[in-house]
Amino acid sequence: MVPIRERAEDKSTMIAEIVATGEEIRTGALIDSNSAYIAAKLGENGVAVTRHTCVGDDLDFLIAALTEIGGRADLAVVTGGLGPTADDLTAEAAAKAAGVVLDLDRSALQSVEVFFKARQRAMNAASRKQAFLPAGAKCIQNPLGTAPGFCLKIGQCQFFFLPGVPAEMRRMLSDAVLPQIIERMGDNQRFYHTRTLSTFGLTESQTSERLAGLKSAFPQISLGLQVQFPAIQIKLYASGTKDQQLNEALAAAARWVTEKMGNKVFSQNGDPIEEAVGHLLRQKQATLALAESCTGGLIADMLTRVSGSSDYFVFSGVTYSNQVKIDILKVSKETILRHGAVHAETAIEMARGARDISGATYGLSTSGIAGPTGGSAEKPVGTVCIGLATPQGTAGHQFHFWFDSRTMHKQIFASAALEVLRRELMGIGPPRF
Amino acid sequence: MVPIRERAEDKSTMIAEIVATGEEIRTGALIDSNSAYIAAKLGENGVAVTRHTCVGDDLDFLIAALTEIGGRADLAVVTGGLGPTADDLTAEAAAKAAGVVLDLDRSALQSVEVFFKARQRAMNAASRKQAFLPAGAKCIQNPLGTAPGFCLKIGQCQFFFLPGVPAEMRRMLSDAVLPQIIERMGDNQRFYHTRTLSTFGLTESQTSERLAGLKSAFPQISLGLQVQFPAIQIKLYASGTKDQQLNEALAAAARWVTEKMGNKVFSQNGDPIEEAVGHLLRQKQATLALAESCTGGLIADMLTRVSGSSDYFVFSGVTYSNQVKIDILKVSKETILRHGAVHAETAIEMARGARDISGATYGLSTSGIAGPTGGSAEKPVGTVCIGLATPQGTAGHQFHFWFDSRTMHKQIFASAALEVLRRELMGIGPPRF
Repeated sequence: MVPIRERAEDKSTMIAEIVATGEEIRTGALIDSNSAYIAAKLGENGVAVTRHTCVGDDLDFLIAALTEIGGRADLAVVTGGLGPTADDLTAEAAAKAAGVVLDLDRSALQSVEVFFKARQRAMNAASRKQAFLPAGAKCIQNPLGTAPGFCLKIGQCQFFFLPGVPAEMRRMLSDAVLPQIIERMGDNQRFYHTRTLSTFGLTESQTSERLAGLKSAFPQISLGLQVQFPAIQIKLYASGTKDQQLNEALAAAARWVTEKMGNKVFSQNGDPIEEAVGHLLRQKQATLALAESCTGGLIADMLTRVSGSSDYFVFSGVTYSNQVKIDILKVSKETILRHGAVHAETAIEMARGARDISGATYGLSTSGIAGPTGGSAEKPVGTVCIGLATPQGTAGHQFHFWFDSRTMHKQIFASAALEVLRRELMGIGPPRF
Repeated sequence: MVPIRERAEDKSTMIAEIVATGEEIRTGALIDSNSAYIAAKLGENGVAVTRHTCVGDDLDFLIAALTEIGGRADLAVVTGGLGPTADDLTAEAAAKAAGVVLDLDRSALQSVEVFFKARQRAMNAASRKQAFLPAGAKCIQNPLGTAPGFCLKIGQCQFFFLPGVPAEMRRMLSDAVLPQIIERMGDNQRFYHTRTLSTFGLTESQTSERLAGLKSAFPQISLGLQVQFPAIQIKLYASGTKDQQLNEALAAAARWVTEKMGNKVFSQNGDPIEEAVGHLLRQKQATLALAESCTGGLIADMLTRVSGSSDYFVFSGVTYSNQVKIDILKVSKETILRHGAVHAETAIEMARGARDISGATYGLSTSGIAGPTGGSAEKPVGTVCIGLATPQGTAGHQFHFWFDSRTMHKQIFASAALEVLRRELMGIGPPRF
């Protein structure tokens, strides 16, 4: 269940905790994504996070949590509760936990004033509250919002307090917090490098089996698998004190993994499949048209998430009804009557039609049963037919997947179609699932 | 920043904590969504969650966390670390924290055996490990996976240990854990009801201003706003000991909110906009065809996420190039030359074309600039033109949004187009943003 990830961070000399505050997180109305982000960033910089805590906007619980952490960690990052309203209590709790009072901080006040001035808005009294920081705290500027952050020692632990708004938190973490941490580590700093390969076509456990020999071939590299359904990302981690050496070891390990995965790696840098396919189309100066039935526009949506995709993507006909397949894509009525809509022959005619009417280099199509209804004994839910039309000819494929949801079927059908095209563009045989 | 959510749960008589375990969560490779889910479910059943904690697969840290919580909470739900591998340490940590040994549990062994038998797979030795539970623990069956859960008292606190796989955890929480908690509360049980309305067209702070009078009009109702970009969900919470009374109060508050929001509520039960529009099309026995340029298939993808959407959705022409707009949608070359692709007139011709070639009742189109490139002084990034063709005639609109990302622009363009159609179907005037 848990990806096979070694604990490279545990060689670190500094231990850290993360705290998320806020009623919405405590009550489950909001999923806390900040803590994972901070843990990953601290990990990359060689700081081991031992615990995450979440508490609501309750002064006593906040003070208790900060005091506890002050007694056991070297470093803590706290998010949330720095805003202007009455339930933003983090600064007050931090002051109480540190045994100091709240004072108007000139630098914090200036930060709030600059924010309002830049937007030609008047600063209200509530916003002024944000400039009151615990005595002895050092203000951390917030270039994206009104709430300044601050750092403060509580017990033995250096705390960094940041706003809960993800964009503001991320910016302040990278601009102000991480540089301070790295400086503090001095000669003890280790480098933590990661390399991410994207793959499609094997399950998590099959991938894990294929890569079982990595540890003995590359003892210094750790492996993690992360499902980005339906793709799987293979993450390679290396840590050490020599930057260049780490990069070389990661490159060698990436080559080893790519070979073991036998054509199933579609990106050497963690890109999604629509980006890998777009890259190949651009290289070949080729264009693409789609005919989507069961994927319902998802493939087009994926391709057009990539900026500049208009260079190679020209058209998708999302043809949900048979009549539209006949009228617009010029699929023959006989083919549909003889085989039904979900058939390799129909898919081929759809792909050919999309290519012909748009003048694209390639035509790619999907027709299948995403569920939950519409399946039969012969063509159960999870069946998809994929058609491909190229300047040289056409090909049709039928695959079958077994997932629980319509959404997952649409996603894997879309990726399977893009994988069919990717392999055609690479000049390797069609995929098998 | 924090939605205006009163703390209804704090009237509860029982306090609870949640623990998530696992290296992937500790290191930030995985975002913990289980804790939010459990917090929400406990909250609905009148149990206040005071703290969430996450620790990695480290025996000492696990024991420390469980022991601490055993000393301060009435109830705790722990997820993860029950699997067959060496780094699944939760049962061992629970035994150590409770001061007992691990014993083979007959009921747990049977649960694992049943799982393998049902799938005609042989049970391996590692899986047998999962049947060793702390002495005195009571097994919780896992109908969806191999790892049984268990409940165990540590200190003053009743712990429930569940697997980390979300589907398994959710099933066991609702089948086994919540009934035990409700029984334990007996006459102290309060009911916690929620009502969710979906809205589009105002910002979070504008919505909050419109609803400022809710608290005085309905003192027993609490309000929460949750952004499901670009929609905003208005959540109404009520708690009390009388089931029927709560439902009536929520219904009255929902009517009040709907009136204040002036046609901007598109669902009375939290549905996404594609479902609300699908519902209206089905009611009218009408069909829809799309012509998507800047939304790149996203509207079609949204509509076809809804099972049964083939009843009303017939076609989307994702026309990324001008030539395809001319060839397939029959947009006149002159219109594009005179106005460009991003213009209300072009959008109208696209909508009319999609309707004409597919025979649908309605045609809806988008043409705009999602960014990050392609903007001009006259038509900056964030501009979208939306065309609508109905049996009665056509209409075109131009809107402008200001977001930072291509993805967000695609999402808000798609929702704006569906909102144009929704208001047409409802017989109310077009939206203004």
